[in-house]
Amino acid sequence: MQLAFSAAEIAAIVQPRDTRGSTSATIRGLSALKTAQAGDLTFLGNNKYKAEVPTTAASIVLLPADYAGEPPPGQLYLLVENPSVALARVCSRLEQTLWPRPAPGVHPSAVVAADARVAATATIGPLCVVESGAVIGERSHLEAQVFVGRNARLGDDCWIMPGGCIATECILQDRVRLQPGVVIGSDGFGYEFANGRHEKVPQVGHVVVGNDVEIGANSTLDRARFSRTVIGEGTKIDNLVQIAHNVVVGRHCLICSQVGISGSSTLEDFVVLGGQVGLAGHLTVGRGSKLDGQSGVNSDLPAGSFMKGTPCLPYQLEQRINVLRQRLPALFHRVDALEAEIARLK
Amino acid sequence: MQLAFSAAEIAAIVQPRDTRGSTSATIRGLSALKTAQAGDLTFLGNNKYKAEVPTTAASIVLLPADYAGEPPPGQLYLLVENPSVALARVCSRLEQTLWPRPAPGVHPSAVVAADARVAATATIGPLCVVESGAVIGERSHLEAQVFVGRNARLGDDCWIMPGGCIATECILQDRVRLQPGVVIGSDGFGYEFANGRHEKVPQVGHVVVGNDVEIGANSTLDRARFSRTVIGEGTKIDNLVQIAHNVVVGRHCLICSQVGISGSSTLEDFVVLGGQVGLAGHLTVGRGSKLDGQSGVNSDLPAGSFMKGTPCLPYQLEQRINVLRQRLPALFHRVDALEAEIARLK
Amino acid sequence: MQLAFSAAEIAAIVQPRDTRGSTSATIRGLSALKTAQAGDLTFLGNNKYKAEVPTTAASIVLLPADYAGEPPPGQLYLLVENPSVALARVCSRLEQTLWPRPAPGVHPSAVVAADARVAATATIGPLCVVESGAVIGERSHLEAQVFVGRNARLGDDCWIMPGGCIATECILQDRVRLQPGVVIGSDGFGYEFANGRHEKVPQVGHVVVGNDVEIGANSTLDRARFSRTVIGEGTKIDNLVQIAHNVVVGRHCLICSQVGISGSSTLEDFVVLGGQVGLAGHLTVGRGSKLDGQSGVNSDLPAGSFMKGTPCLPYQLEQRINVLRQRLPALFHRVDALEAEIARLK
Repeated sequence: MQLAFSAAEIAAIVQPRDTRGSTSATIRGLSALKTAQAGDLTFLGNNKYKAEVPTTAASIVLLPADYAGEPPPGQLYLLVENPSVALARVCSRLEQTLWPRPAPGVHPSAVVAADARVAATATIGPLCVVESGAVIGERSHLEAQVFVGRNARLGDDCWIMPGGCIATECILQDRVRLQPGVVIGSDGFGYEFANGRHEKVPQVGHVVVGNDVEIGANSTLDRARFSRTVIGEGTKIDNLVQIAHNVVVGRHCLICSQVGISGSSTLEDFVVLGGQVGLAGHLTVGRGSKLDGQSGVNSDLPAGSFMKGTPCLPYQLEQRINVLRQRLPALFHRVDALEAEIARLK
Repeated sequence: MQLAFSAAEIAAIVQPRDTRGSTSATIRGLSALKTAQAGDLTFLGNNKYKAEVPTTAASIVLLPADYAGEPPPGQLYLLVENPSVALARVCSRLEQTLWPRPAPGVHPSAVVAADARVAATATIGPLCVVESGAVIGERSHLEAQVFVGRNARLGDDCWIMPGGCIATECILQDRVRLQPGVVIGSDGFGYEFANGRHEKVPQVGHVVVGNDVEIGANSTLDRARFSRTVIGEGTKIDNLVQIAHNVVVGRHCLICSQVGISGSSTLEDFVVLGGQVGLAGHLTVGRGSKLDGQSGVNSDLPAGSFMKGTPCLPYQLEQRINVLRQRLPALFHRVDALEAEIARLK
Repeated sequence: MQLAFSAAEIAAIVQPRDTRGSTSATIRGLSALKTAQAGDLTFLGNNKYKAEVPTTAASIVLLPADYAGEPPPGQLYLLVENPSVALARVCSRLEQTLWPRPAPGVHPSAVVAADARVAATATIGPLCVVESGAVIGERSHLEAQVFVGRNARLGDDCWIMPGGCIATECILQDRVRLQPGVVIGSDGFGYEFANGRHEKVPQVGHVVVGNDVEIGANSTLDRARFSRTVIGEGTKIDNLVQIAHNVVVGRHCLICSQVGISGSSTLEDFVVLGGQVGLAGHLTVGRGSKLDGQSGVNSDLPAGSFMKGTPCLPYQLEQRINVLRQRLPALFHRVDALEAEIARLK
């Protein structure tokens, strides 16, 4: 990342309440407090790391407004309401540099069907395929090697990174962002066992991905058996997540990496699933529920549940049981001893 | 999905035993009982949802022959032996519309080696790569951006969805279907630790995928260290599954999403693995065994096992232990109380 | 795999200490002891399989120097110091046949930016995309359909298999090998919840993959929020692994399939993670630690830890608890009985 900001430019971005010290360094990198070097910008985002502030080698430090210390010579403190937010502003500026708006148009190496409708403001990158009847909305950007199948529809301002696949009939609404290698609209996993073999149940539905959804690299979302697999507005999905057929994910959920959601299950709005969580099929996780990493869910959960373990239990109970579990060897000895005592007493 | 069927056309497809009521609606969608609207076809596939039949807004309802109720005006009941099978027939009809047989031939943007042997009836989609010595059988269809490596061989009627990779020397037999992004023939994960580093053990075997196998999106099957990694006829593999080197999967197995099978393990025929199951290496799971989701297997299992948990135990025992586990806090209190009683008695 | 070696050629490769018996067969395959046929080479790599040696149908058997038996007529024993190492030598020879060095140059179907710097000795395969400012080092080989984003840099002797994606600004050092479908540099999964929705935290760092790292098919490595996600020299990563933003993996680690490492966690050198292990964020696993498959880690682990379970415990303790856990039904009965006895005694 080639960046070069003066202290004054950084200050213009983060709008500090106050400043202490000064630096003449050009900021060329962002770094954590501990690993920062001269020329870096750093920040105190979590008070856990407060002790690292006095010794950081960074040239500029973003600090909360109530931070008490003074910088050494050549170092600048910028005191802000929220250092994480201030850093995010710097990063947003960098983001525009890293990923500038591409010029609209279709790369000559792309294969676009004559009857696909590609907005004039959209960008179709090299070696993309856009099939018959597909629609690409205003300012949407397909990076390289993306596949958009027959009659699939992308709304406005979508951003599909390299190697993404949006299969036949699937729909992305507006501002959907797919990281590289995402598959939207693979067949659901449905078979009927008959005559000694698994006969395929046709999977003829599609997938609808709502506004402002982001989906992580190499995640897979299956088309419905019929009707729709749905991802609600604002939901964010991490890498290598599996969403099975006919799943309905509500709005503004967070689904961490390697989660698997089995067929026809429903997440209501604002659900948070930790990494590697697994959900059985045909169940509902109520609004605002949270599942700790690696949990397994095999029954409905009411709204506001906070669960952990396989099969999952209320978080505090699971924590308690995990402590007691470590005392099982001692417990068995205690019961042995009790039995011996009873035998003696009899 | 653009569909438009009259009630008479649907009846011609499902061949009902009996009908009740009538509708003049054109069927434009399929939906679940609860979410169906006028113009939809729905069905009662699971008696769990029986109470939703009287209030469904669908125009046509597929029902079991012994269903007792009468439809409201404008709604048609089609009474069939098995509503799920009847629906599958409708879906099969739709499937042909959604994925019409492609015209044979090689897309001009595909890169096909001069000495690859592509059947005249096969279809090679845009931006595919077929390397030297590869063979593509009759009527096989590579969608867009598929890679077929040197000397890889696909049989007849295979269907490889976008982005699939069938690496050097790997073999797909007939009617193999790969969902998007599948990797067949990545190197097995084999290293020998020597001189303070992991030296690669060459992986020079290949993968053989049997007739009628289907593999889900972004799943990965490693080539054998030498000889073959094998997937038996009729086996169905879901998305994001990992099959390590030298694994042998039997015939007609079902492997759900995110399962991982470690090197040199064997599944005999008709094994079913739930989602996120993990198998250690060099073990055998006997014919017809079933593993519940998230189970972990680290030893051989005899034929007909039904297991759950990590490390897995017989299903009923694991269920029982999971109940008792929740009573551990009470059990510790009971043992505390017993110890106090004993102390008093002494 | 088309191979054809005479017994003399095999002997020249493995340099046996001693030989017994003889064969005139041409070696056309490698196989395990049990499944080998005439014309195959096999080996005794693990004494567990010693009983299979006398009945193997292979034409040549690689055996440890102290092996006592005699081969039947037409079979050749090659007695070597380490049969696994000897086999690896044969496989290395095969590897060169299977994957011959490609000719340098850029395939005419590849899309390479005018200002990308591609070494004259590098090979850019068909339908690759190399964007502006990217650097491809000496003898590096991009197979088909690989994507290298703006300013990404690959060192010398890298090998990127089909469908790999190395996104903007990411760095691979020398001799990095990526199996098919790997994604390097997807966005980290970072959001701040504000105004009822998850606002994206810009992810403007990159990924640095050290010398001699190998990464398995469809694995995903997220770019840092800022600064770097790092994979240390010599580390080997299996298929479908998730490495989150700002993770630092040390040197010579082994990370098995489907592992997930959450954001900002650190593995020190020589750590081994079994399949499907999950690590929470912001923690450190000390040098040389080993985690058994499916373990879950939610706190720092000191160097040399050997752990198992979720949440993980020392391996022996977890094994002990897993045994006791199976005795919980009996334990509850024992406590029931003790309570009855106490009641009687009172």
